[in-house]
Amino acid sequence: MSDMRHGLMALGLAATVAGPAGAYDGLVEKQSFTYPGAFTTVGGATIAQVKVGYETLGKLDAAGSNAILIPHFFSGTSHFAGRYKADDKAPGYWDALVGPGKPLDTDKYFLISVDSLCNINVKDGIAVTTGPASIDPGTGKPYGSHFPEVQIRDFVTVQKALLDKLGVKKLHAVMGASMGSMQSYEWAASYPSMVERLIAVIPSAQADAYTIERVRHWGDIVKLDPNWKHGDYYGGPEPLDGLTMAFKVLSLDTLAPEWGAAQFGRKWADPAKDPAKSPDNLYAVETGADAAALSRAKAADAGNFVCLVRANELFTVGGKDDLAEGLKTVKAKTLLLPSHNDHLLFADATRHVRDLLDAQGTKVEYHELDGPLGHVNGVVGMGQAAAIVQKFLAE
Amino acid sequence: MSDMRHGLMALGLAATVAGPAGAYDGLVEKQSFTYPGAFTTVGGATIAQVKVGYETLGKLDAAGSNAILIPHFFSGTSHFAGRYKADDKAPGYWDALVGPGKPLDTDKYFLISVDSLCNINVKDGIAVTTGPASIDPGTGKPYGSHFPEVQIRDFVTVQKALLDKLGVKKLHAVMGASMGSMQSYEWAASYPSMVERLIAVIPSAQADAYTIERVRHWGDIVKLDPNWKHGDYYGGPEPLDGLTMAFKVLSLDTLAPEWGAAQFGRKWADPAKDPAKSPDNLYAVETGADAAALSRAKAADAGNFVCLVRANELFTVGGKDDLAEGLKTVKAKTLLLPSHNDHLLFADATRHVRDLLDAQGTKVEYHELDGPLGHVNGVVGMGQAAAIVQKFLAE
Repeated sequence: MSDMRHGLMALGLAATVAGPAGAYDGLVEKQSFTYPGAFTTVGGATIAQVKVGYETLGKLDAAGSNAILIPHFFSGTSHFAGRYKADDKAPGYWDALVGPGKPLDTDKYFLISVDSLCNINVKDGIAVTTGPASIDPGTGKPYGSHFPEVQIRDFVTVQKALLDKLGVKKLHAVMGASMGSMQSYEWAASYPSMVERLIAVIPSAQADAYTIERVRHWGDIVKLDPNWKHGDYYGGPEPLDGLTMAFKVLSLDTLAPEWGAAQFGRKWADPAKDPAKSPDNLYAVETGADAAALSRAKAADAGNFVCLVRANELFTVGGKDDLAEGLKTVKAKTLLLPSHNDHLLFADATRHVRDLLDAQGTKVEYHELDGPLGHVNGVVGMGQAAAIVQKFLAE
Repeated sequence: MSDMRHGLMALGLAATVAGPAGAYDGLVEKQSFTYPGAFTTVGGATIAQVKVGYETLGKLDAAGSNAILIPHFFSGTSHFAGRYKADDKAPGYWDALVGPGKPLDTDKYFLISVDSLCNINVKDGIAVTTGPASIDPGTGKPYGSHFPEVQIRDFVTVQKALLDKLGVKKLHAVMGASMGSMQSYEWAASYPSMVERLIAVIPSAQADAYTIERVRHWGDIVKLDPNWKHGDYYGGPEPLDGLTMAFKVLSLDTLAPEWGAAQFGRKWADPAKDPAKSPDNLYAVETGADAAALSRAKAADAGNFVCLVRANELFTVGGKDDLAEGLKTVKAKTLLLPSHNDHLLFADATRHVRDLLDAQGTKVEYHELDGPLGHVNGVVGMGQAAAIVQKFLAE
């Protein structure tokens, strides 16, 4: 239950839940990494300077072989566990899995997570990133529409440079949820001799036509706001209405009907105001969702959001439109953890990945996550998979 | 297959499919009905004059007892079968089920469908309706934001007045898809002694929290367009961008991943233009969806669209927030036909309705529709249920 509350906080779905004690009791610190020299994207563009945040827990061993990399999901950051300050309302999103004796055992493993390029959470100070909202050293102004398209493969390139700098030689595992799984697949496909284990949670190895459309809509809704100005709104009013609407759609896309039935049903926001009597009278689910979306939008940058949408839209493992071909180089022992009622990244698609990996001789395990929250079951309520993850990491 | 093509045309998903011959070969004619006197909505508002279109096939028998009412889905009209002119590209959406010897047998039954209030299809001349885009006789201008909220129950009230005028005493059946199923449930709950059979296709007996949010987003996206002007845009530029975006989201919400996999995959719109090379380079699914949404938006009115969204959001059978209570008066023998991969109105919810009807002693049959199109399986490809529907109507 505490697990569920943490995740909901991370996702902005529950705004007023008091944070119970996390599994990891120490404090964590955001650190920064500047990519050595200019960064060349997989698409061939140059970014003069790339700087990203990262967080680590545990200690790297002498051989540099006990690291677990934890790439984050679309609306997440590298804050996967712990608190920055003792009085933080909530710890990082997978806190329940992290700590001494937990699956992501801080006594055994060196855990590391890196803020993505174009990370959306730039306004609450928890992400350090480079994206459209960053200052272009060439002009002294935010990049806006001049920031190049980046891909999931670029996130991996940045992470690889950081791991090299830290002395990581082997990844005991790479483990990520949703967009974090994309990065994990990409790691396993790109560096097969470095990645020993792959844990893909509520995963996607490829944006298919349906997913391309789903995520594209989030960005296109932002662009409908007249303040968007083709991405060059910096210094003027921001497209907050568009971004709030995009978060409303995104949030619902990640949930399942069971979520709403349990929490809201057809309850009225105000028991004295029947929604059937006036368009101003709302259902409880509506006011709840509106408040959460507005709060998420205020903490995010719209330009980075649209940039990140595009990275997800373009993703296919190994850059190969043929999925079997993209997975061909994956040698890591693999654990797949889709959610049974995920209506964004369907379990069906992950069963297909399992079959492809199995057919090529890659060891693969498959378990479906339970829970009422659809896609979000893989962020919230991951406690249910603790034993499976622990066993998989130990073998 | 021809069945599938008709439905796709009706839904605006396939713009350039030549229309094969329909099952019903005669021509149909749009007729109009003016409600006697002023119309009082279930919410207590008055509409000075309500006028709606309707279409009929077959002949009413002397006892007035062979009628089948076919309420339409959200983006549909009363054009359920046949053609207006011999050279129409496509017939009505359920044409494959209609005609001599077909389940909806025009030799046996008097088939009737009525354009909803706030019908969205006002610009291509196929709907006759009363809604925000209609002229308020009090001002001589379109109602816009002054049009009152209407509910599914109001659609039923209008239909009942028309059936009374036509001399219909009994409904052999009421059969509708999606929003048409809401009207069908409402008919069975409100007039139990008049409705002998209920066929609810891709149905919903109640908008739950998840559905409330889903449909509300469609309207809220329209309102994001600066041309919306709180619904009073008539005479000025229309919120076409917002309405097009809403249709993009709505269309995807009604589909399933299998749809995209079969038709598009990750195909590029232009084989020479890799989407990873420029944001202007699109996937085939994107250009296809954009064209379909724009075409649907151009034929629709945004004010009526938002009005209709609200009617769907407010719906719960019998006006009771408690579903079991709302269904209590339903006596009609019932056939439930949800779609196995419907991610808008889930089959789960319909299994719950089946159990409630069964528990109260109402005869109920349940079959899941197959196909790759999610919710749309219930509009397109209904040929698969022809034998089931025919048998159910004959018993």
